[in-house]
Amino acid sequence: MKSFGHPIPYNPQVSRTFNVQTTTGPARRGQLATPHGTIETPVFMPVGTLATVKGIPQDLLEEIGPEIILSNTYHLFLRPGVETVRKLGGLHGFMAWPRAILTDSGGFQVFSLSDLRKVKEEGVTFRSHLDGSSHFLSPESSMAAQIGLGADIIMAFDECTEHPADARRTRESMELTLRWAARCKKYFEEHKREVPWKAGGAAASSQSPEKSATGDWQLKADSRWPTADSRQLLFGIIQGGMNLALRKESAERTIEIGFPGYAIGGLSVGEPRDLTREVVEATLQHLPVDKPRYLMGVGTPEEIVEYAAMGIDMMDCVLPTRAARHGLLFTSEGRISIKQARYAQDEAPLDPKCPCRVCQRYSRAYLRHLYAANEVLAQVLNTVHNLSFYLDTMRTVRQSISLGDTPRFPHTAER
Amino acid sequence: MKSFGHPIPYNPQVSRTFNVQTTTGPARRGQLATPHGTIETPVFMPVGTLATVKGIPQDLLEEIGPEIILSNTYHLFLRPGVETVRKLGGLHGFMAWPRAILTDSGGFQVFSLSDLRKVKEEGVTFRSHLDGSSHFLSPESSMAAQIGLGADIIMAFDECTEHPADARRTRESMELTLRWAARCKKYFEEHKREVPWKAGGAAASSQSPEKSATGDWQLKADSRWPTADSRQLLFGIIQGGMNLALRKESAERTIEIGFPGYAIGGLSVGEPRDLTREVVEATLQHLPVDKPRYLMGVGTPEEIVEYAAMGIDMMDCVLPTRAARHGLLFTSEGRISIKQARYAQDEAPLDPKCPCRVCQRYSRAYLRHLYAANEVLAQVLNTVHNLSFYLDTMRTVRQSISLGDTPRFPHTAER
Repeated sequence: MKSFGHPIPYNPQVSRTFNVQTTTGPARRGQLATPHGTIETPVFMPVGTLATVKGIPQDLLEEIGPEIILSNTYHLFLRPGVETVRKLGGLHGFMAWPRAILTDSGGFQVFSLSDLRKVKEEGVTFRSHLDGSSHFLSPESSMAAQIGLGADIIMAFDECTEHPADARRTRESMELTLRWAARCKKYFEEHKREVPWKAGGAAASSQSPEKSATGDWQLKADSRWPTADSRQLLFGIIQGGMNLALRKESAERTIEIGFPGYAIGGLSVGEPRDLTREVVEATLQHLPVDKPRYLMGVGTPEEIVEYAAMGIDMMDCVLPTRAARHGLLFTSEGRISIKQARYAQDEAPLDPKCPCRVCQRYSRAYLRHLYAANEVLAQVLNTVHNLSFYLDTMRTVRQSISLGDTPRFPHTAER
Repeated sequence: MKSFGHPIPYNPQVSRTFNVQTTTGPARRGQLATPHGTIETPVFMPVGTLATVKGIPQDLLEEIGPEIILSNTYHLFLRPGVETVRKLGGLHGFMAWPRAILTDSGGFQVFSLSDLRKVKEEGVTFRSHLDGSSHFLSPESSMAAQIGLGADIIMAFDECTEHPADARRTRESMELTLRWAARCKKYFEEHKREVPWKAGGAAASSQSPEKSATGDWQLKADSRWPTADSRQLLFGIIQGGMNLALRKESAERTIEIGFPGYAIGGLSVGEPRDLTREVVEATLQHLPVDKPRYLMGVGTPEEIVEYAAMGIDMMDCVLPTRAARHGLLFTSEGRISIKQARYAQDEAPLDPKCPCRVCQRYSRAYLRHLYAANEVLAQVLNTVHNLSFYLDTMRTVRQSISLGDTPRFPHTAER
């Protein structure tokens, strides 16, 4: 779609929580209100699987700047268990993170990590990847878990259709996801008042600061705290495999159930990137413009710009954090594999255009040394940089849309 | 020795670099001037073996507060190699650490880590613990390495006498260390102008900030930079095993060679703690009052207080950092093994009396979760706390001496 070089005023179909400010072609610049702060969209959400963005202390993470992070229900369900997190005031209190959090439903990881899973109408029986112990997750128990974890945005329990899958299998899987979505919504509506930070938030003011698990000493760095009437947002997930007709049907029937936001699931499961793009573009056409659209599990720095340009509002991916742990660093000059001997005496900063703490202080030679010596600081510093790069990229995207420009990857082509 | 409840004015026998301000009994409160800042003594030096205090970014380390850290020549000699560090401006430029650094000689680690070492008059042939490759260290090559690494304080290459050792073996080892000390001093005097930060410091002002390896972008957080005439300090090491007469002789003959500071080596090698204390006390009597006294490789929080009270000015130990990695945390209420299930839902801070970032923000339950889940953040946060605890302990010790009180461990007895 063509951009006309100035912001196209958007007819704001304001939902309770989401507001599209400006559009440039299909790209949208918006705000999503959550109980723990308002998120500027398009947004990239760093992954903090086990209630920690691996290696990064929360104060440093606040400085890097994400307004929302993602945690994984499957992992937290197994360790430390939902009840422990709930007792500590939900994820916010537990990990002392005052900003917004999104949890996935556990569905995707049951399918990708656990052994011997059995999918029935009722739910999924699976064995833990940690110790082989047997567990059960259903729409209801996933909702109960996500209410107990207390993230700001929670996801319907879906079946992620494998790729490739034939038309019949894809339809059956989609139908199951739709039935589960309705059960998720029903359970959520009946239990949404049980979120721990609602109780914690209310209780906090009547308790002494020292005794409040979710209150003063843990969260004094930030006063974002939900009001008594604030609620989690439950998002629906569109499935339908690579079949565009089924994607359309899945979108329409999920919207019929009705959610404050919609995710596109079942992509990045091994299909070629062109196909991903095609499915995303086709699915987006069937999603309401006044609700946030979340593309799960993408992508590279170039891809997150591209999807934002297509009209996606939210994305998450392990790539910046996982790549950092493997010494793969994203820079304005392309990707750098810091383990290479060519950097052993390179006194330049990792990315001369990057304002992050790592690029401001350390040389490539030092980062290469830390990685080669298997030092933990390598993971810490590499993660700081990669997350800074992703968040800076998204900041540029938002600026472009605000200025009426089509979002473009702001750096030179990948090496 | 009795304290009289007020500071005893000390007759300051001011050496060029060390100044004793106040004494309380044998305990001394002083300042040690180094090319990268003045160190308040008694001081505890955190260990940063491979040019990193494991898991802690340098800006966070600056905030925790050490004025000096220790790095290991043996490890850096093997990886990344002295030449790489030298080219990057010495350790200060390489690791972007603007404050003081001390390197050990490599002697202790050749004896404790490497295989198949052969000690001859000339030096030690040994095999790397990393890859079995063969290397040679001598007084001269240890000096060359430590000049290339460019720490502020460097150590004579000694033989650490094993324990137990008979009188003859202990004397032979001590004599070898004395001959090596004289060779170290000779080599150092001839080559001390080759320190990389001297050249770097001089060159920095005539280069553009971007091009300076040791200059602006790496070190702009702090302007501590050596003047053109500042020099490394080479300390001698007293050996003599557990034999008090040999300790006396080693002290006297090392002082005869003449160094700006003296270390007590060869302790904490498996002997009972009472014996360590006895040898330290006896050796201290033979060390000049106007030079800093460094007890190598100690100790627990209680021990560092005790040795400071005996008149030791400098100490280092891997204990706070290594224990942190094993989930052993030092607190004002005693030691805590954070892996224990009893902390799984404990919402209290690790140490309610500790002002560190970890105790101000996180619960024991969260720290226990991170440790149990083998998360890297466990190591980072545990290390922040343990180092903070050690440095706070030493701060209290210095305050006590300044006030004329005998340093005492300020907390309840160990559990």
